[in-house]
Amino acid sequence: MQQLEDKLIQWRRDFHQYPETGFMEMRTASIVASILDKLGFQLKMGKEVMSEADCMGKPTEEETKKHYQWAQKNGAIDDYLNPFSEGYTGIVATLDTGKKGPIIAYRFDMDALDILESDSNEHFPHNEGFSSKVHGKMHACGHDSHTSMGLGLATLLIENKEELKGKIKLIFQPAEEGTRGAKAMAAANIVEDVDYFIATHIGVGVPHKQFVAANSGFLATSKLDITYDGTAAHAGGSPEQGKNALLAAAASVLSLHGISRHSGGTTRINVGQLEAGAGRNIIANHASMKVETRGETSEINDYVKEQVTSIVSGAATMYQVKYKIETVGEALSCKCSLDLAGILHKCAEASPDIEISQLEDNTPGGSEDATYFMNEVQKNGGKATYCVFGTELAAGHHNEKFDIKEDTLIPAVNILFQSAKVIMEQ
Amino acid sequence: MQQLEDKLIQWRRDFHQYPETGFMEMRTASIVASILDKLGFQLKMGKEVMSEADCMGKPTEEETKKHYQWAQKNGAIDDYLNPFSEGYTGIVATLDTGKKGPIIAYRFDMDALDILESDSNEHFPHNEGFSSKVHGKMHACGHDSHTSMGLGLATLLIENKEELKGKIKLIFQPAEEGTRGAKAMAAANIVEDVDYFIATHIGVGVPHKQFVAANSGFLATSKLDITYDGTAAHAGGSPEQGKNALLAAAASVLSLHGISRHSGGTTRINVGQLEAGAGRNIIANHASMKVETRGETSEINDYVKEQVTSIVSGAATMYQVKYKIETVGEALSCKCSLDLAGILHKCAEASPDIEISQLEDNTPGGSEDATYFMNEVQKNGGKATYCVFGTELAAGHHNEKFDIKEDTLIPAVNILFQSAKVIMEQ
Amino acid sequence: MQQLEDKLIQWRRDFHQYPETGFMEMRTASIVASILDKLGFQLKMGKEVMSEADCMGKPTEEETKKHYQWAQKNGAIDDYLNPFSEGYTGIVATLDTGKKGPIIAYRFDMDALDILESDSNEHFPHNEGFSSKVHGKMHACGHDSHTSMGLGLATLLIENKEELKGKIKLIFQPAEEGTRGAKAMAAANIVEDVDYFIATHIGVGVPHKQFVAANSGFLATSKLDITYDGTAAHAGGSPEQGKNALLAAAASVLSLHGISRHSGGTTRINVGQLEAGAGRNIIANHASMKVETRGETSEINDYVKEQVTSIVSGAATMYQVKYKIETVGEALSCKCSLDLAGILHKCAEASPDIEISQLEDNTPGGSEDATYFMNEVQKNGGKATYCVFGTELAAGHHNEKFDIKEDTLIPAVNILFQSAKVIMEQ
Amino acid sequence: MQQLEDKLIQWRRDFHQYPETGFMEMRTASIVASILDKLGFQLKMGKEVMSEADCMGKPTEEETKKHYQWAQKNGAIDDYLNPFSEGYTGIVATLDTGKKGPIIAYRFDMDALDILESDSNEHFPHNEGFSSKVHGKMHACGHDSHTSMGLGLATLLIENKEELKGKIKLIFQPAEEGTRGAKAMAAANIVEDVDYFIATHIGVGVPHKQFVAANSGFLATSKLDITYDGTAAHAGGSPEQGKNALLAAAASVLSLHGISRHSGGTTRINVGQLEAGAGRNIIANHASMKVETRGETSEINDYVKEQVTSIVSGAATMYQVKYKIETVGEALSCKCSLDLAGILHKCAEASPDIEISQLEDNTPGGSEDATYFMNEVQKNGGKATYCVFGTELAAGHHNEKFDIKEDTLIPAVNILFQSAKVIMEQ
Repeated sequence: MQQLEDKLIQWRRDFHQYPETGFMEMRTASIVASILDKLGFQLKMGKEVMSEADCMGKPTEEETKKHYQWAQKNGAIDDYLNPFSEGYTGIVATLDTGKKGPIIAYRFDMDALDILESDSNEHFPHNEGFSSKVHGKMHACGHDSHTSMGLGLATLLIENKEELKGKIKLIFQPAEEGTRGAKAMAAANIVEDVDYFIATHIGVGVPHKQFVAANSGFLATSKLDITYDGTAAHAGGSPEQGKNALLAAAASVLSLHGISRHSGGTTRINVGQLEAGAGRNIIANHASMKVETRGETSEINDYVKEQVTSIVSGAATMYQVKYKIETVGEALSCKCSLDLAGILHKCAEASPDIEISQLEDNTPGGSEDATYFMNEVQKNGGKATYCVFGTELAAGHHNEKFDIKEDTLIPAVNILFQSAKVIMEQ
Repeated sequence: MQQLEDKLIQWRRDFHQYPETGFMEMRTASIVASILDKLGFQLKMGKEVMSEADCMGKPTEEETKKHYQWAQKNGAIDDYLNPFSEGYTGIVATLDTGKKGPIIAYRFDMDALDILESDSNEHFPHNEGFSSKVHGKMHACGHDSHTSMGLGLATLLIENKEELKGKIKLIFQPAEEGTRGAKAMAAANIVEDVDYFIATHIGVGVPHKQFVAANSGFLATSKLDITYDGTAAHAGGSPEQGKNALLAAAASVLSLHGISRHSGGTTRINVGQLEAGAGRNIIANHASMKVETRGETSEINDYVKEQVTSIVSGAATMYQVKYKIETVGEALSCKCSLDLAGILHKCAEASPDIEISQLEDNTPGGSEDATYFMNEVQKNGGKATYCVFGTELAAGHHNEKFDIKEDTLIPAVNILFQSAKVIMEQ
Repeated sequence: MQQLEDKLIQWRRDFHQYPETGFMEMRTASIVASILDKLGFQLKMGKEVMSEADCMGKPTEEETKKHYQWAQKNGAIDDYLNPFSEGYTGIVATLDTGKKGPIIAYRFDMDALDILESDSNEHFPHNEGFSSKVHGKMHACGHDSHTSMGLGLATLLIENKEELKGKIKLIFQPAEEGTRGAKAMAAANIVEDVDYFIATHIGVGVPHKQFVAANSGFLATSKLDITYDGTAAHAGGSPEQGKNALLAAAASVLSLHGISRHSGGTTRINVGQLEAGAGRNIIANHASMKVETRGETSEINDYVKEQVTSIVSGAATMYQVKYKIETVGEALSCKCSLDLAGILHKCAEASPDIEISQLEDNTPGGSEDATYFMNEVQKNGGKATYCVFGTELAAGHHNEKFDIKEDTLIPAVNILFQSAKVIMEQ
Repeated sequence: MQQLEDKLIQWRRDFHQYPETGFMEMRTASIVASILDKLGFQLKMGKEVMSEADCMGKPTEEETKKHYQWAQKNGAIDDYLNPFSEGYTGIVATLDTGKKGPIIAYRFDMDALDILESDSNEHFPHNEGFSSKVHGKMHACGHDSHTSMGLGLATLLIENKEELKGKIKLIFQPAEEGTRGAKAMAAANIVEDVDYFIATHIGVGVPHKQFVAANSGFLATSKLDITYDGTAAHAGGSPEQGKNALLAAAASVLSLHGISRHSGGTTRINVGQLEAGAGRNIIANHASMKVETRGETSEINDYVKEQVTSIVSGAATMYQVKYKIETVGEALSCKCSLDLAGILHKCAEASPDIEISQLEDNTPGGSEDATYFMNEVQKNGGKATYCVFGTELAAGHHNEKFDIKEDTLIPAVNILFQSAKVIMEQ
């Protein structure tokens, strides 16, 4: 066990030093694939497990190529890099025990954030020499540890293969940040046959040595990039010839924030960024906005999104400009299957490392695209849950000083492994 | 002459006591028709001289019927009332001299305003006992004197018929206020054959005993009634079920006032009235707005009107409501024919009652639908002008204490008559 | 009992025929006072039990006087009318048993709505000949039955006076509609000494023969009348001289609806009515809006109200106009005291007329100003609850065909009476 | 003369290759100062002729220092660079003839634009090898030729010094683009004693070999940088904690564009650029806007600017954010002195190189901060005009292919010189 714990930490610290953002996890994925292959998992990778049409907010081809070159020079495993070269960086690793039994899937996300990591002396990764080597990118949400946990679980499964039944799928997902990657993997039908699905996260408000077996409070969300294109004109000399994209954007912003509340539950709408115009004395011919909607259920989020569409297209008509709405991220709401969660809850209660285990938490909070998998599995009659391993955070998620307690890793891996065993026995 | 002056004053005071607003000038028209018929003019009346489809902002059938009954009881001449019973209250009276010569037309407007006349002791009509007998209606723009002048001119023409050549048309127009009536008469082709067209107004900033032969500064204008219809819903219980007409209106208002200036000349836009909603706790399902556009030229006003259409329809899309835009009044811009104006200018200079005559004034100002006639005449190769007889005003136009000097009437009639004679001689 | 039931129905039908809206319940109050006085209650009335400064949305003095004259002619009891003549129509009737014991208060509201009652043949009050005799006013929320229930409870209390301990206060409140009247009574300290407070309502979604002992889902709310005053100007001739109140209102409307959601719970904001402007061609110098805010808690509603204040004052600055915000109604949120509710719950379960009794319902819904009393009582260490007697509704509350089942009255009165007895025994 | 023409072209092409934007004209000014000093003019430079407090839109100290280093390496004349090192790059060069006579001033502006010059083969400066050596900066408004003309005029004045009377001041002004530099020189009282003031421009719509002696159509203008600062918050987790600067900006934009037209003359308002927010899921805590106002007169522009202030501060109140309005450029309106223009008109008519000279052009158009000098001179009883030397433009002003005909230079210099002689003789 000490050996596995060492490995977990070593993996996590390696990934931490080479953070890769969504659809760019080429180095990470090549290392994950290499390890899983050697352990004996069957691998499906890249476009085999990702629907191209359903990738949202994917970087440009040029950016992707550039990162591929970076990965080649920064420790990617050459033999495993190719399937990920175009930015389809998902992996599904299957262990088929050959024995009759359920299909159980675990999801781990791999992507980092566009955050400049702190170089403070109080920052543990900095002091220990494993902070980000990529300026402006950072694992500030713990996905480095998730990936490490996935490899740890894989190791335990192989080590205990003889005790197991059915099939186990380990899903390594790209681009969870911005809720962009899961939809494309779900659309590739990778969980179509799954009976039990477990996603997991570290931290997110749960204290150290505590566990939540079912986190059902995720808000459905859509991330929208909206642009207006009009006609420039000299603001002094011929203002009437302009088609003002900035005015269309400003009118949209006010109306978007005024989308009606919904009696069915919580909603959110935010125009987080707006850039418009080319110069003080020019009627602005371009505007772009970054918008986010949320809803307590997928239906409520759809309601908000429909209002966005009406407002954005209407404002385009008002100002005689063209508009485009691109969905660059999306996640659903989901209610966890409490019977599956109950198994995890019991495993956690049985763990010497967990002091408090909670079955369920429904507090509305963030968003997660693991919900695509969960809804898909439940729709087909399977069970799904989203569990959280508490840890002590040095600073909040997405903060430059974010850090976890590494002693959270091995108990988490053990509980996940135990859950597989219990499920198989049912 | 003293006798004619007495008549002018008597007519004017009679009309003043019985003010009738646009498309309601039934009593007035019946009296005018009766007098002109007796003088020997050929009359065309009502729908003969007004295109039904081009009447803008006409009152409802019910309001029209009710007023007809009022007119019957308040001095309308029964034998002449019928052609005006449905609210088509225009008259074209023609004097054909039988001699070869030009066709000259003079326009007089007849309508009053929805204003409560002052009962101050300083108000001349009140003191002399000829103030409005209709509560809330008043001749506060001098159209009572215009109608009187038209009858005076008719009298002089008949008295001097032997000296005349060609044809003279006297046009008595309804609904100049709100620029609603002229378009319908022009669309009935009543000025199609006119060689010289003269419209006139009393007051409007020109001092007593002064005259302006060509007033070209009229702004083109559109009067628009705009409504939104959505869906009501309880604002607390199910706000998302509402389609909010009040929000559509509010968004429109801000964007309408933000319509871009035009480098080609003056523009105006005003949402003068807005009424929306049915109750504090109800999502508003209805909104109505009274809007006015203006432009230094008809083209510029068209530009503004087009922006209004885009904005209003776009805001409807934004809020998923229905909209309607009704044009309830419209006027064009026009440049006076200076050669025709020159004739009036000389007649005025020759008048002992005019101290200062000015050929032309281009100051941008109000709007007038006589411009429909003027543009039509000029389009067919004729000449047109709009002249102003200065007077001393007790208070500004559309004020409850508005009043003119009655000694302005007889010189005006004489100058108009002289102009006819000079034109015929050309 | 049959006799009491007959009385309940007779009272209810009498009040139903003479509906009086908020702060106008003069006839109603005079009858209530007369009955209670004869039964032997000690009465405090009018300004004795209402803080003038805390009356919200009170009609004008002129309207009040006019209604006073109406009441005199329509069945008010002369000897009891005087205390209510200025529109302070609240009554607190106290029964002091002279024995040591708790102070228990029951609240009944008396006001009607500005709704035209249906004259459909399917409408029970119409068929039975007791529909509203006042055109455009109607008891469409059941307060006629509440008042009747209050008188019924009073009757039972007196009949069983010997069995009772402590003091019982019956509060007859005006102007619950628009949440206007309770604050003024609470501010007059009428519940300062109350140990147990029970408010009640009929219907509101609870089925016939069912009971809810604690309705805690009320949203806090504020009803705001907002006005802007600017400067009129001619929209064509001197638009720059205007200070545009309509634009200030339109800008406010968009921003008000855009007030941010609150992570602490449900919010609502609605501009339900907007009227602005005096004419198409005039820069609008006046605008008025009817606005409503709600919040899951009083704190959240306060948050929304603060944003309203910022927005409304800021928009006034933007357009250089003056503003006024008047709070014409307000209610708080409240959590019922479940131990007190438990007593009612048991009394209901013991009643042969109640098939299902529910202890608590927290579904967020409407608003109630009984919450002023409840908060006040709880603040002083007392207990408070709001219970609902289910009935079969002919149509929803505030509908022109609203009607209750009259057989709901006598069980309700009995349960309330029983609750008093049980409370006293504790 | 040929020699002077060669010099004019050589100077112009040198300046063209080293374009320096506003308050950065260090190399240019050092060369100008060097030449004028050698010619024998008395020089006042830098802060001697510029009021620090009145410099608008001046680059930061850091940018200024950086450019100073650039100038040192790119041909600035070391001995003359020091006075301009902090970015106060104005020069006033005086020739005192010692004889009694008027004080005449000529203004030349020196700054370039942030435009990337065309490298098309059709672009004359490119083909001739004198296009900009500074990527992204370009003399695209002809100020290189203005500076050259000023040096040419200086040369002629010195060559003909014996014929002259009075004093002649040559003003070399920085930062005319964005109308930023003149106010600071006028505020340093450099035209306080001037009797005749002449500013000039090349091109601006006047055809080749034509001249306009008085261009009075400049609109007054203000260039405003406006920022809002609020409070960031997570848009999903705690939106109510944000103070939304983006919403304040959007509300401002709509209201700014809705500033009322002015009956006194043309107005313009434009929000040309808006940037706001830090991320999709963050309540935006910062927004910045580039705004421009214009007015047919300085008073009308002041009216618009006042509305801007009200709107911007009001929107800050609405959204509880802080605001800052910085005036980064400003120009006045001005009516040219026609008697002074008459002199230039006659000189132009006498020139063999000018085919058509026009006394006056009042067409409303762009803006110019030479108007600060003109107003100041006229206020003190002096005369001022702004004349235009027509040329054939390869492309419009501020276009990447802008170019003038160099044969416009020598006639322009000659006419300016002749004007000085004629003025002195009066």
